[in-house]
Amino acid sequence: MRVQLSVETHGRGLVDVTARVAAAVERSGVEDGLCTVFIHHTSASLVMSENADPTVLRDLDAFFARLVPDGDPLFRHTDEGVDDMSAHVRAALTATSIGVPVAQGRLDLGRWQALYLWEHRYAPHTRRLSVVVVAA
Amino acid sequence: MRVQLSVETHGRGLVDVTARVAAAVERSGVEDGLCTVFIHHTSASLVMSENADPTVLRDLDAFFARLVPDGDPLFRHTDEGVDDMSAHVRAALTATSIGVPVAQGRLDLGRWQALYLWEHRYAPHTRRLSVVVVAA
Amino acid sequence: MRVQLSVETHGRGLVDVTARVAAAVERSGVEDGLCTVFIHHTSASLVMSENADPTVLRDLDAFFARLVPDGDPLFRHTDEGVDDMSAHVRAALTATSIGVPVAQGRLDLGRWQALYLWEHRYAPHTRRLSVVVVAA
Repeated sequence: MRVQLSVETHGRGLVDVTARVAAAVERSGVEDGLCTVFIHHTSASLVMSENADPTVLRDLDAFFARLVPDGDPLFRHTDEGVDDMSAHVRAALTATSIGVPVAQGRLDLGRWQALYLWEHRYAPHTRRLSVVVVAA
Repeated sequence: MRVQLSVETHGRGLVDVTARVAAAVERSGVEDGLCTVFIHHTSASLVMSENADPTVLRDLDAFFARLVPDGDPLFRHTDEGVDDMSAHVRAALTATSIGVPVAQGRLDLGRWQALYLWEHRYAPHTRRLSVVVVAA
Repeated sequence: MRVQLSVETHGRGLVDVTARVAAAVERSGVEDGLCTVFIHHTSASLVMSENADPTVLRDLDAFFARLVPDGDPLFRHTDEGVDDMSAHVRAALTATSIGVPVAQGRLDLGRWQALYLWEHRYAPHTRRLSVVVVAA
């Protein structure tokens, strides 16, 4: 099964998409297999991280903001704003796709894992994800 | 086929899991396909790297230790130790899942490639991996 | 379906492999599914990035060259040249495999997405990719 999800972001930051991906897996009827999530963008990305303490998400974003400065004078691709090239670098450093096992008909994440869409642009966007579920 | 592996780590560092994943692929009976390895944690991760010279692994870990300092004053998520938030960042910068081709019934790695579980915490842990093998 | 591609690189830099991967998907006859691309090397890697403005690729490479200095005195793995250990780190920070949805028999990328093989070594190389297409 392959479905698409449309996710609204609120500018830079992480949006938990776990429940929507898990629901797609449950609808697929696949008992044992692989669920691959893909993001159709290059200035937003995917990351698996801890869902228990929200300061983890804040720290992740703060670390990446320092590691990849917006408006870095190194960058020549500047036409789309100071946050565009940094967004592409942040996306390259994280994931465009993640494959997660499906067990007993459910997304088999670790106890503390959640899947996040990471918006790297300042402005809110509508982002497209695909979820592909394959039986093993 | 989907199986789980339990891997003991010895604190921060890389553990070669290639042989165990390759054995799971051989048991699956799949001749041509895709083997996806997934780690059920957010303070340990996966990385494919060179298996010939052990200094490569030492250098990888040294580079990441400098890039993502433990106890960075930027971090607010500090309750679980100075190595916890840095572990989450290191995991975000590397892989949660990797898909490898299966050819002639075997894991089809490059000549110098090995798959490593990268423990980012100081303390030894028992880590859970899933291996999902799908025919192509 | 599983096929291999041989890609010639021209030294450090990004090579667009989208058309060759898309052609493999079209030949597979799979209408709905997952296309996983894997690189059989640890000093070259994969990245999905924008295909519109070539300065994005130049900036990506410039950023990584500053982040991971060639000949870093931290590195002990120095026998294969100043660009070898940095290549392994750059590969660890990007992707060894990427899974892309297949929809209506075609590789379903976002409008601005292209898939690049990123050569991290100074010298030209012949690099091996595998493309595995699975029906969903």
